[in-house]
Amino acid sequence: DPALKVFSLNSNPTLAQEIAENIGTELGKCTVTSFSDGEVQINIEESVRGCDVYVIQSTSEPVNQHIMELLIMIDALKRASARSINIVMPYYGYARQDRKARSREPITSKLVANLLQTAGASRVIMLDLHAPQIQGFFDVPIDHLVGVPLLSDYFEEKNFDDVVIVSPDHGGVTRARKMADRLKAPIAIIDKRRPRPNVAEVMNIVGNIEGKTAILIDDIIDTAGTITLAANALIENGAKEVYACCTHPVLSGPAIERIDNSKIKELVVTNTIPLKDEKRIDKITELSVGELISEAITRVHERKSISVLFD
Amino acid sequence: DPALKVFSLNSNPTLAQEIAENIGTELGKCTVTSFSDGEVQINIEESVRGCDVYVIQSTSEPVNQHIMELLIMIDALKRASARSINIVMPYYGYARQDRKARSREPITSKLVANLLQTAGASRVIMLDLHAPQIQGFFDVPIDHLVGVPLLSDYFEEKNFDDVVIVSPDHGGVTRARKMADRLKAPIAIIDKRRPRPNVAEVMNIVGNIEGKTAILIDDIIDTAGTITLAANALIENGAKEVYACCTHPVLSGPAIERIDNSKIKELVVTNTIPLKDEKRIDKITELSVGELISEAITRVHERKSISVLFD
Ligand SMILES: Nc1ncnc2c1ncn2[C@@H]1O[C@H](COP(=O)(O)O)[C@@H](O)[C@H]1O
Ligand SMILES: Nc1ncnc2c1ncn2[C@@H]1O[C@H](COP(=O)(O)O)[C@@H](O)[C@H]1O
Repeated sequence: DPALKVFSLNSNPTLAQEIAENIGTELGKCTVTSFSDGEVQINIEESVRGCDVYVIQSTSEPVNQHIMELLIMIDALKRASARSINIVMPYYGYARQDRKARSREPITSKLVANLLQTAGASRVIMLDLHAPQIQGFFDVPIDHLVGVPLLSDYFEEKNFDDVVIVSPDHGGVTRARKMADRLKAPIAIIDKRRPRPNVAEVMNIVGNIEGKTAILIDDIIDTAGTITLAANALIENGAKEVYACCTHPVLSGPAIERIDNSKIKELVVTNTIPLKDEKRIDKITELSVGELISEAITRVHERKSISVLFD
Repeated sequence: DPALKVFSLNSNPTLAQEIAENIGTELGKCTVTSFSDGEVQINIEESVRGCDVYVIQSTSEPVNQHIMELLIMIDALKRASARSINIVMPYYGYARQDRKARSREPITSKLVANLLQTAGASRVIMLDLHAPQIQGFFDVPIDHLVGVPLLSDYFEEKNFDDVVIVSPDHGGVTRARKMADRLKAPIAIIDKRRPRPNVAEVMNIVGNIEGKTAILIDDIIDTAGTITLAANALIENGAKEVYACCTHPVLSGPAIERIDNSKIKELVVTNTIPLKDEKRIDKITELSVGELISEAITRVHERKSISVLFD
């Protein structure tokens, strides 16, 4: 079988290290730095000729830097005669720009898909895409992993008495349903609506949360406005306590302050975007997707179905 | 004729304004900002349906940010039914990564060409490419402008007595020859060579510079090592005084300090990369390429040859 090599770029060095160890290999030798003027400089320091290469890179902040690093790495690997260039993107940046919501908007998710393919990606492994339709933006195979089992297992061990899984908006109900199935719990939905333009939003809760432990689940937490308002509404409406979880902790701008000041007891996230030191507050627990991704890489390389990873 | 619209992104707002004024139009309304997490957000605030659009953007520092802004803008314009999307790149970043000089290097210049075309560029207007071969990296029309006339005219007005045009390395001799033709001056070359590995470089000067006013010309001045060493060698070897000029003042890292401490009397640059305030020192004169580019845009739009711009 052709050799499998794992390379890390600059977004997730710790996760990449964990993945390489799980697979029983060492990270490929490669330096990714900048020239004096800020242009990305990549030196791949070992042969990749004929190899199946896996590149680990989230397009998290600084997103444009991380995208260009990834594209330039793909270009270098292609020209160095890699047999296949498999991109592992634990977090797919620009996923929210996935449609024209207004006139003359770009569809940057699709643009990035095209750029990855133009550079030479053979396959992309992703986790909890903001919209599963983004898979269709690609013409190469996509392996789409999900974070719900990992997050659910963490809460299962807490053995809560009376749990309800809550979607913070209409778009996330399917995700909440999946977690509810695993935890054998009911669901509820925060049904935000604006009665008339320029009138404050009403936070209605659909489902029974009274006296229960509520677990809010979302895919991305960015500025944390939605999730913290939802948590507070749950407590005001009689929930006993509120936990929250998400796969991708973007946590930009006021996020950490909002979470700290909110009624959220604990926020569980994964390391698809590693937490910077200043974001490591007591309330936040970080789980690793390392095992999930290593397993996926191994199965892909051995040409086995990855669907077992979802059961 | 379809309407011509000029849009500016974030690299060269002043130059873009000048170009729009020269053409007798206003800059297209458009905001290019970032979401809280750093993702580029573009709002085009006027219709471009059926228009010939010109987008002004140098891929100067921050280069990856400027590239992504440009690609996302092209995507938005394409989806907004622009008739043609003409990219004006006064400075083409990553131009020096134009070949595999060592094993497993990327060819980022070619990658960027592919990315621009994938996004939807119809044409690219560029100025003094580091290597003219980069034109061949594109399959859409390229209009390649040159800065030598602008720089030469500036020096012509100084009416120097006895001038020699100097190339700071072997790669720039053609450029020096072009300037020498315009100024009716002879040329000289700094012939750097390393006699043996790990032995200091020898700065040999080919050509007569004794008692003359020397004008060094290069396309890019980045960290300014080459140009300042060349200037000092010219003075040591008997030149009367040394001027220097380039089209693209990248001026990264120690550049300003080196120029300030060097024997260069005046450095003449253009605004393909606008000088940041902290780089505006007395020794540096900035010329505008605004007229050259406006003329080129007008001629392209009117389907006239642009070759007259080189005479
Ligand atoms: N990075 C971002 N941060 C905040 N909002 C964004 C971002 N990218 C896109 N959007 C907006 O989010 C909306 C889509 O979000 P959603 O409805 O949750 O899928 C779009 O209308 C975009 O204008
Ligand atoms: N941004 C950059 N800054 C400095 N050196 C670079 C940069 N990009 C590429 N290079 C190197 O410059 C060399 C090409 O420069 P040149 O010989 O002047 O065409 C290549 O071998 C690259 O490794």
